[in-house]
Amino acid sequence: MLTSFDILLKDLKKSSQKTIALAWGHFEETLLAIKKAQSEGIARAIIFGNANQGKKLIEELGMDANLNDFLDAKDEKEAAKMAVMAVKNGDADIVMKGLCSTSSLLKAVLNKNDGLRGKSVLSHIGIFEVASYHKLLIMTDPAMNIAPDLNDKIGILENAVDAAHMMGIELPKVAVITAVENVNPGKMPATEDAALLTIMNKRNQIKGCIVDGPLALDLAFSKEACEIKGLKTEVGGDCDIAVFPNIEAGNVFYKSLTKFANARSAGIIVGASAPIVLTSRADTEDSKFLSIAVALKISA
Amino acid sequence: MLTSFDILLKDLKKSSQKTIALAWGHFEETLLAIKKAQSEGIARAIIFGNANQGKKLIEELGMDANLNDFLDAKDEKEAAKMAVMAVKNGDADIVMKGLCSTSSLLKAVLNKNDGLRGKSVLSHIGIFEVASYHKLLIMTDPAMNIAPDLNDKIGILENAVDAAHMMGIELPKVAVITAVENVNPGKMPATEDAALLTIMNKRNQIKGCIVDGPLALDLAFSKEACEIKGLKTEVGGDCDIAVFPNIEAGNVFYKSLTKFANARSAGIIVGASAPIVLTSRADTEDSKFLSIAVALKISA
Repeated sequence: MLTSFDILLKDLKKSSQKTIALAWGHFEETLLAIKKAQSEGIARAIIFGNANQGKKLIEELGMDANLNDFLDAKDEKEAAKMAVMAVKNGDADIVMKGLCSTSSLLKAVLNKNDGLRGKSVLSHIGIFEVASYHKLLIMTDPAMNIAPDLNDKIGILENAVDAAHMMGIELPKVAVITAVENVNPGKMPATEDAALLTIMNKRNQIKGCIVDGPLALDLAFSKEACEIKGLKTEVGGDCDIAVFPNIEAGNVFYKSLTKFANARSAGIIVGASAPIVLTSRADTEDSKFLSIAVALKISA
Repeated sequence: MLTSFDILLKDLKKSSQKTIALAWGHFEETLLAIKKAQSEGIARAIIFGNANQGKKLIEELGMDANLNDFLDAKDEKEAAKMAVMAVKNGDADIVMKGLCSTSSLLKAVLNKNDGLRGKSVLSHIGIFEVASYHKLLIMTDPAMNIAPDLNDKIGILENAVDAAHMMGIELPKVAVITAVENVNPGKMPATEDAALLTIMNKRNQIKGCIVDGPLALDLAFSKEACEIKGLKTEVGGDCDIAVFPNIEAGNVFYKSLTKFANARSAGIIVGASAPIVLTSRADTEDSKFLSIAVALKISA
């Protein structure tokens, strides 16, 4: 069982070193995240941006020149395209956003010919280690899909399941989160979608996982809560993945765990043919590092 | 500043003793919550239910006969009506649900002639004490209003502000929670509603508080997050009340704090002419007691 990020890191260090394609990366803030990953021995990098500035910074920051290639790009759009192409060509395993805009990077990823399009939607997953739960938990989608319909939710769920498989969780338990555990016809569409996802899983339309929903958050993460309610569930109290019904609920959960529960966290965009790391200035150093590490772990 | 439930309890003990009207309360589980409140010296009770059973239980549980009146009711509906009437007549200050159904109790509360209707919607507030925040926080609505429109949100917000005033928070800071801090026209209606509530407060259409939104959860509760984003806000990082855009987001926050952040919590229905306590079997003893205490505190 994957009980901590440290176990995942240990695993990662055993496998052969992978490569990050960093888009528009000639900035101290971004390079420091790469440096931390390299001091842990988990990654090489190809960095796209202003080569003069970048190479100078790499030296100033005391980064290992043998682990970092720097390729000149004239602007952030070109850097994004080049980073995506590096992954497409097999020279790198994951894409990471430097200081280019998110839209520049996602445009390059979603380009029909030269991009990294996957089978359905792009989605965001959060991975958390929190003292009050017995294993790592994956949650989705706190940041990308605003009001997903049932088809979007299938894609979001499958993206998270694929990531869980790559993390070594063979048959992840997926809780579809709502405010209550009963189907509330007409009045709470989220409960209807949750029930439909559960049956689609039973009918083998959604594979590689065990889905149960609708489940309120306490039922998803607490066996005791399930017992008090007399709820029979394979997933409740032991879920690996929690799928949220809308961006507000997902975002609130993500931020509750970091702000109020002292969780360690990683965040990754999945659903493209390679994982994408979009850390933001507000992320802690630890979170940036873990995002890189998990992205490398779940890359093909 | 109201930094803990203990301060609120200390205040409550200083004021004259109030009375709980308990609907369908001749059960050990329910009476134990009353007993705890009475051992803390904060409440009398009038209990409606099977008087034979109830009086016997009161004796068996060692409860003070002088603090508890028992009035016979033939079924849960009659008990609910009688409890509501006791508050309406001024014999009691709050209504508490025993083992009658929630719908029986709310039906009695919402009765046009003999009920306790308020000015707009009924809503649920959660009150939390959590180590990682510097004061009590009020949040709404985790359990009653499923997908509130702007008018409902005004009512929900004002109900929480009224409760905050009764708790002694003179000018509560209200964060309207969304997934992002910018208005996203057309695509994220919750951000539009949040902006509208903010301006309605500035125009004095919503009074007695300072409203700011849209705000993501981290901005509402962390000054540091506001600084990193360069966000100017009177509310961010210091909010007293968080208003959530839908039942799923509110419910997830409520349960995240109890399950993952070891919060102490109280929950109350507000918006009627008196507070209503609807504890459930899954609530801890502490939470049931605090719900009673806060309801008494915010009753007129």
